[in-house]
Amino acid sequence: MNNKAITPRDKDFAKWYTDVVRAANLCDYSAVKGCMIIEPNGYAIWEKMQHILDEKFKELGHVNVSMPLFIPESLLKKEGELVNGFAPEVAWVTEGGSKKLEERFAVRPTSETLFSDYYSTHVHSYKDLPKLYNQWCNVVRWESTTRPFLRTREFFWQEGHTVHATSKEAEEETLRMIKVYQWFHHEILAIPSIVGKKTEKEKFAGAEYTLTNEALMYNGVSLQSGTSHYFGQKFAKAYNETFTNKDNKLEYCYQTSWGTTTRMIGGLIMVHSDDYGLVLPPRIAPKQVVIIPIGKSDEVSNLASEFNTKLNEAGIISYIDSSDKTPGFKFADAEVNGIPLRIDVGERDLKENKLTFVRRDTREKITSDKDIDIVTYVKDMLDTIQNDMYKRAEKRMNELTFEAHNLDDIRNILNTKPGFIHAMWCGDSECEDKIKEINGCKSRCIVDEKPIDDKCVCCGKPAKYHVIWGIQY
Amino acid sequence: MNNKAITPRDKDFAKWYTDVVRAANLCDYSAVKGCMIIEPNGYAIWEKMQHILDEKFKELGHVNVSMPLFIPESLLKKEGELVNGFAPEVAWVTEGGSKKLEERFAVRPTSETLFSDYYSTHVHSYKDLPKLYNQWCNVVRWESTTRPFLRTREFFWQEGHTVHATSKEAEEETLRMIKVYQWFHHEILAIPSIVGKKTEKEKFAGAEYTLTNEALMYNGVSLQSGTSHYFGQKFAKAYNETFTNKDNKLEYCYQTSWGTTTRMIGGLIMVHSDDYGLVLPPRIAPKQVVIIPIGKSDEVSNLASEFNTKLNEAGIISYIDSSDKTPGFKFADAEVNGIPLRIDVGERDLKENKLTFVRRDTREKITSDKDIDIVTYVKDMLDTIQNDMYKRAEKRMNELTFEAHNLDDIRNILNTKPGFIHAMWCGDSECEDKIKEINGCKSRCIVDEKPIDDKCVCCGKPAKYHVIWGIQY
Repeated sequence: MNNKAITPRDKDFAKWYTDVVRAANLCDYSAVKGCMIIEPNGYAIWEKMQHILDEKFKELGHVNVSMPLFIPESLLKKEGELVNGFAPEVAWVTEGGSKKLEERFAVRPTSETLFSDYYSTHVHSYKDLPKLYNQWCNVVRWESTTRPFLRTREFFWQEGHTVHATSKEAEEETLRMIKVYQWFHHEILAIPSIVGKKTEKEKFAGAEYTLTNEALMYNGVSLQSGTSHYFGQKFAKAYNETFTNKDNKLEYCYQTSWGTTTRMIGGLIMVHSDDYGLVLPPRIAPKQVVIIPIGKSDEVSNLASEFNTKLNEAGIISYIDSSDKTPGFKFADAEVNGIPLRIDVGERDLKENKLTFVRRDTREKITSDKDIDIVTYVKDMLDTIQNDMYKRAEKRMNELTFEAHNLDDIRNILNTKPGFIHAMWCGDSECEDKIKEINGCKSRCIVDEKPIDDKCVCCGKPAKYHVIWGIQY
Repeated sequence: MNNKAITPRDKDFAKWYTDVVRAANLCDYSAVKGCMIIEPNGYAIWEKMQHILDEKFKELGHVNVSMPLFIPESLLKKEGELVNGFAPEVAWVTEGGSKKLEERFAVRPTSETLFSDYYSTHVHSYKDLPKLYNQWCNVVRWESTTRPFLRTREFFWQEGHTVHATSKEAEEETLRMIKVYQWFHHEILAIPSIVGKKTEKEKFAGAEYTLTNEALMYNGVSLQSGTSHYFGQKFAKAYNETFTNKDNKLEYCYQTSWGTTTRMIGGLIMVHSDDYGLVLPPRIAPKQVVIIPIGKSDEVSNLASEFNTKLNEAGIISYIDSSDKTPGFKFADAEVNGIPLRIDVGERDLKENKLTFVRRDTREKITSDKDIDIVTYVKDMLDTIQNDMYKRAEKRMNELTFEAHNLDDIRNILNTKPGFIHAMWCGDSECEDKIKEINGCKSRCIVDEKPIDDKCVCCGKPAKYHVIWGIQY
């Protein structure tokens, strides 16, 4: 039985996506066009993402701070490339406390300017470095086309902003943090991804270079899932961030920034979910196990309670669905909401010394002996689900990874189903533009892999870069 | 040795306050007037506050969500009292993506309107009730006079918004949550407080009534430290929040909201800190114990490491100050930053089989045998510090609690040092205004205590309410 409210994924992917979002009560539209209401089920996923990433950031020595929501226009304009990049998307506060403001304030689209301004007055000596700051906050970009989680006018993210005494250290930080994002996608979200460097055209405004973590959705479309920017001394020069180095000379700081957003929730859905609703990998699921008692006997309710207590004590987040709905409704609920594992504790099963488990990812029913060690059994099964989900996503990514040796190859691939397209590039932005004319196919990133040709896929001149191309969200 | 950067508290309280904030690196001014940069030391306190309160909210069945940052003007205006209350302080977004907006958007000063709008479409039946939602977010109020943590244009808070099927349940929620705030102040922040009901004049715009948690600062000035509002059906009627009750009749919902803010950090400082910098109760201190090795012997460094490991394993947040500063600098650092307990592991002490402990709250040195059970010893001492801090604050609050039987009493009290002034009131707002003329003395709250007179302190007519009055931040 398919959930009737959900359009089949292979029929209309975009509609399927919003159907899953609504059916699982992840978010809803608000009175403000393009801004989401994140509902309890969706927000619990974001809280868990925050918790795991924050712990990792802190392990690596980062500390959290909070910069203001507003940026005076004059401050924003100091770094020209950045403001040019963001100007068309800025929301402006022009009135406050019943008065027109003397200067417009941007609602922050990103906070490089504020961190740079802060560092310019708080960093004096190499002894003050590095500063490894991060903030969890909302940012606003006035997009014209929006889509729940993937592109919204207000979204949530963390933005790390660090300053260092040497370029070496700052570059190491840039790489370390993109590797954290990749780790988070692989290990927690069960989403395989590739890491590489953005081309000049696609890099962050104001960066020397941008590293990106790119994931592939079920439909072959790419999703940029975390970026890490190396600024060199660009911001330091614009905002006068100097320090006295070990040789007692004044020098500009070296800076980075890196971020991941609520967009990752969209990625989770588009990689793992199915026609029956949300599917979540156990490590990111706010609720990992649902226990459904079937029948009213004491044995049923006692065993359900015993399991629940044991699992929770072992650090597995389980709950009993003790609502007055029928078992059928409870099954459907657990399914649409993506609870990774269901345990049916049923009167009939117990008479036969059995328990029934249902995996959400495969919808497979598994019968076990009643007298298993429930904690070990469930732990193993959650690990299996997590690993299987990763492997399936990886298999699909591999199946949707192609090589192109000329523009016709790219056209043919995109006419069937998009994916990651490996092709060599001369480094000329005209060629990049020409490739983009094919269904909007953009360079995802430059990768450090061995060449597949010696010529540019577009112009035939000598190739400089091995690039992965694709259609993006 | 006093920290020279800090103005003595008894000399200039306001200057002392900002000196402590800056000396302990809690927050800094930003390029936007009235908006703070919360620095790592300050943000860590806020994170701990959030963590403890959030856990408590969830224990009581609340779930977190996220409503948009912006509120369309038309939506904000639906509940007239609310908008009248906030209109003078609203920041307006009028331009987005290079275009003038058709309708102004308020940057949320509070989110009753958005929650009400949401509930109006998501609540249908009594089976959907109660909804116990909360959000942690930033809000903006365009204040003209600002002060770090106490009054800032952008601040952070949690706002709980709940809807219920009966007034009884909603009123119970209103009371339960103000009790949570009082519990948090007493048990965690070591701040005694009184809970009561705001007068009509002082209640939240749009509420049937407001319960408040009022704390008293070192200088006798009151700080409203958490409020909980009962809305009855006011918002439900303005935003059409209806549900089908058990008798299958359409009814308006009963609603509450409650909030606490980053202002509590200001309260912490003004209750506990001293001329030497920040003083934090152990239960809210992000770092509870600092271990300072004195001398370079292996015994010193081994013992310091051993203590640190044992304490951290026992859930006590300790760290070793292993910087290359002198011990004197490390002592001053620990002091100004309010680390509740310092352990000196010194070569000389160890030769005499001794350890030295220094309490931040009393600055008292305590010598112990080297071979104590460090975990038990430190746990006990942290508990003692926490309890002593509460008792000292409570003693001060009691000493600054007065009774007034006429307006001259109030004048005399306020001319010496303000505090909580108990006085009877007829309930007439003219009398409230007259009392306010005395140094801006406002009603803090109506308390359920036995009368101290039968006449109004102002007009002499029969008294209806036992009120606590005071000067406020």
